[in-house]
Amino acid sequence: MDSKDNNKNSGSEQAVEHGRRGFLGKGAALGLAGVALGLTACKEQGASTHAADAKPHQAGGGTEVAPGQLDEYYAFMSSGHSGEARILGLPSGRTLKRIPVFNVDCMVGWGITNESKAIIGTKPDGSLQYTTGDTHHVHGSYKDGTYDGRWLFINDKIHSRVARIRMDTMECDKITQLPNVMGFHGIFTDKRDPVDPKINYTTRVFCGAEFHIPLPNDGHDLDDPAKWGALFSCVSAETMEVVWQCRVDGNMDLVATSYDGKLAASNQYNVENAADLNGMMSAERDACVFFHVERIERLVKEGKFTTIGNSKVPVVDGRKAANADPKTAVTCYVPVGKNPHGVNASPDGKYFVCSGKLSPTATVIELAKVLQWFDGGLKEPRDAVVAEPEIGLGPLHTAFDGKGNAYTSLFLDSQCVKWNVDAAIAQFKGDKNAKVILEKMDVHYQPGHNFSSMGETKEADGKYLNSGNKFSKDRFLPVGPLHVETEQLIDISGSKMRLIADHTAYSEPHDGIIVRRDLVKTRQIYNMDDFPNAVKPENAGIERHGNKVHVRLMSQAPAYSMPVIKVKKGDEVTITLTNHDKVEDLTHGLALPTYNINFIVNPQETKSVTFKADHAGVFWMYCTHFCHALHLEMRSRFLVEA
Amino acid sequence: MDSKDNNKNSGSEQAVEHGRRGFLGKGAALGLAGVALGLTACKEQGASTHAADAKPHQAGGGTEVAPGQLDEYYAFMSSGHSGEARILGLPSGRTLKRIPVFNVDCMVGWGITNESKAIIGTKPDGSLQYTTGDTHHVHGSYKDGTYDGRWLFINDKIHSRVARIRMDTMECDKITQLPNVMGFHGIFTDKRDPVDPKINYTTRVFCGAEFHIPLPNDGHDLDDPAKWGALFSCVSAETMEVVWQCRVDGNMDLVATSYDGKLAASNQYNVENAADLNGMMSAERDACVFFHVERIERLVKEGKFTTIGNSKVPVVDGRKAANADPKTAVTCYVPVGKNPHGVNASPDGKYFVCSGKLSPTATVIELAKVLQWFDGGLKEPRDAVVAEPEIGLGPLHTAFDGKGNAYTSLFLDSQCVKWNVDAAIAQFKGDKNAKVILEKMDVHYQPGHNFSSMGETKEADGKYLNSGNKFSKDRFLPVGPLHVETEQLIDISGSKMRLIADHTAYSEPHDGIIVRRDLVKTRQIYNMDDFPNAVKPENAGIERHGNKVHVRLMSQAPAYSMPVIKVKKGDEVTITLTNHDKVEDLTHGLALPTYNINFIVNPQETKSVTFKADHAGVFWMYCTHFCHALHLEMRSRFLVEA
Repeated sequence: MDSKDNNKNSGSEQAVEHGRRGFLGKGAALGLAGVALGLTACKEQGASTHAADAKPHQAGGGTEVAPGQLDEYYAFMSSGHSGEARILGLPSGRTLKRIPVFNVDCMVGWGITNESKAIIGTKPDGSLQYTTGDTHHVHGSYKDGTYDGRWLFINDKIHSRVARIRMDTMECDKITQLPNVMGFHGIFTDKRDPVDPKINYTTRVFCGAEFHIPLPNDGHDLDDPAKWGALFSCVSAETMEVVWQCRVDGNMDLVATSYDGKLAASNQYNVENAADLNGMMSAERDACVFFHVERIERLVKEGKFTTIGNSKVPVVDGRKAANADPKTAVTCYVPVGKNPHGVNASPDGKYFVCSGKLSPTATVIELAKVLQWFDGGLKEPRDAVVAEPEIGLGPLHTAFDGKGNAYTSLFLDSQCVKWNVDAAIAQFKGDKNAKVILEKMDVHYQPGHNFSSMGETKEADGKYLNSGNKFSKDRFLPVGPLHVETEQLIDISGSKMRLIADHTAYSEPHDGIIVRRDLVKTRQIYNMDDFPNAVKPENAGIERHGNKVHVRLMSQAPAYSMPVIKVKKGDEVTITLTNHDKVEDLTHGLALPTYNINFIVNPQETKSVTFKADHAGVFWMYCTHFCHALHLEMRSRFLVEA
Repeated sequence: MDSKDNNKNSGSEQAVEHGRRGFLGKGAALGLAGVALGLTACKEQGASTHAADAKPHQAGGGTEVAPGQLDEYYAFMSSGHSGEARILGLPSGRTLKRIPVFNVDCMVGWGITNESKAIIGTKPDGSLQYTTGDTHHVHGSYKDGTYDGRWLFINDKIHSRVARIRMDTMECDKITQLPNVMGFHGIFTDKRDPVDPKINYTTRVFCGAEFHIPLPNDGHDLDDPAKWGALFSCVSAETMEVVWQCRVDGNMDLVATSYDGKLAASNQYNVENAADLNGMMSAERDACVFFHVERIERLVKEGKFTTIGNSKVPVVDGRKAANADPKTAVTCYVPVGKNPHGVNASPDGKYFVCSGKLSPTATVIELAKVLQWFDGGLKEPRDAVVAEPEIGLGPLHTAFDGKGNAYTSLFLDSQCVKWNVDAAIAQFKGDKNAKVILEKMDVHYQPGHNFSSMGETKEADGKYLNSGNKFSKDRFLPVGPLHVETEQLIDISGSKMRLIADHTAYSEPHDGIIVRRDLVKTRQIYNMDDFPNAVKPENAGIERHGNKVHVRLMSQAPAYSMPVIKVKKGDEVTITLTNHDKVEDLTHGLALPTYNINFIVNPQETKSVTFKADHAGVFWMYCTHFCHALHLEMRSRFLVEA
């Protein structure tokens, strides 16, 4: 591996010459599913805008935020299998914060401090239960159909966990693992209460799961996938406990919720309930399943549920066979295009859009008609479909501009298609002159999620669209075999889409939300009294009980409260540190060499670590977070006697 | 902590109104050392350019890299106690890659795969030795006085480790822990061989250490800091073994090397060898210590060294008492301003600049005169000082433009000062008309390191200067108590400095280098044969020896080579995965739910993990790195029999 001579070099100058089409040529070599799977070719409607052909003023411009100026929007983004959440400023694309959630972050001490370990969860030996995660979706809590700036919720697909982030501090405060679920992919908050109209804010978080597993997954039925199942879960936003689960047919992928609070929905691939690739693609249509939340919760109240294995969470049966009568059904399966990947609610509250992925169509489902089915007033669930335009190859996710237009990512075409919902409905009714496709624009390359400014709220403002692209290829300076991904920012405020920036994302971009900055209110300094273990002058110092030593420490630039701390080899040491600095942005760190400890304390914050002093010597505990002109001198001797 | 009512909110709209001076007012409340420590006030020479006063076309502009265009430079940056290295594109400021080094990164599987664990190091139980790190400096390997694009070296201050990053793949391939050293802060490569003039490239890496510890640090002399010491270390760039160490008086901080290869240098605070803050600041001057590499290595060859504890690394005595005779001395201590933080070599090869931090001066030391001292031709080391201009409060690091000008960060003044080296020398000689200070510009806020494009090479091109600021305060949308830091980009190509961008950095910015893009040649696809454990069709499958099971797996979009893998509870399972896709950017992931495993394999790469199958059930192994339209369907059943 070390020989330079064997390297297949790809210099940056060379990369400059690579054109988009050259790479699309390579893309074809991927064997992307299009032809192999017999996709219907999509007739292109509307003009196609190619960034490569665009004049300089069309591609680029308008995203630079001058030094000292603030961004207009926050983007809260999931970050795939890096396990964190991320805050970007838009339009600049600057990363304002990484929020460690399912990963370990040695800068803040996430996964190192006692407090963070308690949130993540530990094994009996005190080590972390999990250090990996795969986040896909971030959604905020709502009030009156828009963000209330209180919470963000984010999923982990690897270990089926949902995490909550406080938006005042932008830190994770709770993580819950869903029982009897694997491949937890989609997540969405409810927008108001399904029963009580007075509760106009988020109280529930809904979670869709992809993979079928034995229920319980304890080693039985390993070879009988027909017996496996998948559950839809409801988590309390307030307590973060799992309130109920609902068993379904098929896999679930993304989740969306209605603005009236009544329904949650999840798109489904593999309605075949198959365990292998060919089986998963055999049916001509898959589905979007709707959950009638009020009915599910009534069943739970009435005791009409089961439980699985050791879990005490009530499980309601939402499978088709048990829900044949619309008037009592808790679920409604609306057939949609094959292998959909994405379901999104339109900001006018009327529609859900599911994209086909292996069908070149988007399916528009009218909420009122689904409710009509649940009331017995609609013959077939498929009758709730009011449009199904052909929009391009590999349609995945749909965003909205609040002006009646939809923007769907086309994975195979590497494009974003703008189409009009009303025109699609007219076309579906027979209007052959309806102009459905308004524009197609190249993105670079293979887009997954897209999302628009305030697009998942009633305040969708049609300003920006973010396209999270899965391949970047030639878009950035080469950095070796692992490419950075692209978050392309598109100005959608005019009649034509305008590609204005190639922002980068550490792998890998998934879903996110773009939030107007006035909706976010943060606290910039902690309240010391919020920490029951805060160290104050009256309790600072060393306390010993047998071989348990508690070091209560304070920081104030440029010193810790104790210059020398002495313990004995074999002691179990807890260091609790409270930052007494009150100045905004004056964070301190504490690193303990050879003891694998580092964490920070923000102004007025308290954190603690516990470890065994298992080797003797002099260890200089030092401040890792630049705090003062004498920051380098901010260090204390931690002495471990042999 | 949960109550919204108690929050001290700081809305973003409010933040917009915060002016720079308002924050400087708060800065004064920090009790920054200036006044308290009785610093000499610095006479301001030259004009001061305040960004706040600048017209729009002066502040900002010129950093936007249009979609599809490439950056001009790579910036390779340390990232403080996040433990990673980072590649930015400049001028855009886009993060092109995070390189996990001392941290754990669950996206690539760094700290999870067997291969990365072997590089990081493990305890007897197989868990990682360390999961934290604190990187400060990144420097590249040289040839003929400029970067050869082969390696980067980066330090970990917490655990005294040096890591090497291959620049063809931009991945860490070696980590070495320095023995008998604590607080390893500064690092620099040699630029050519001190003995053999034919060797015009990097073969050594020099490492400075701050903290004094007992030698060996085994629990003795805990209470007798006078007996403690610090070592300067030399590591082989090729083997990454520690070749020799040199004991010094005082602490060492940063490291610089001469272009002729003969000398390495380290700035020293705490020449007092004190253990507490007041003692560290008692002397009027500290020093810059120079190491005569050839003489040190001659002593080692002649066996004139000791060893410490269990370490076999030869240790030469570089303390003052043992080096009184210049003609045999291995070290030369040149007195400089108080508590210096930084030493940098000028690109003309003539000078080293040390800044005072607690003295408002920069000290210019002439290399030829230091060599003259080593030859017995200079009376006192201090006579090697050829200039010592007053430049401002809290001077830390100095960058160069290749046109004779120096740029020093002023921590306390929150400024960057541009000054002329020749004018400073003339002034030192008595020229009262010498115009030393050319310009001062506000930066935001409290700058630490700064570095210029190609500024640490003979090819310094005077285009960009990056100011790594330790506080950002009001410069970005508020995201809670932990602020993002600022990497400010300054255009230094004209006669006036021009602040053109506020880029962001996850804490915390330290040193970096800015490298012309034509000097970097990467490979974009691995060579499968570079991996001895590569899985190919002829050896793919399951192999069992007792309870040890080896699963040899291949990936090719959209499937793994085995749809079903069955093992028994209690088995020790190794999964080796080779990515058979050959298309650039076609990376696959492998996550195993509830087994805390995730890692990626880039095109033609092989990685492996080993774990105990300690719980039974069905576990869907799935691809986490978007690879194909049927990426979601890329999954295999991992069955563990009870």
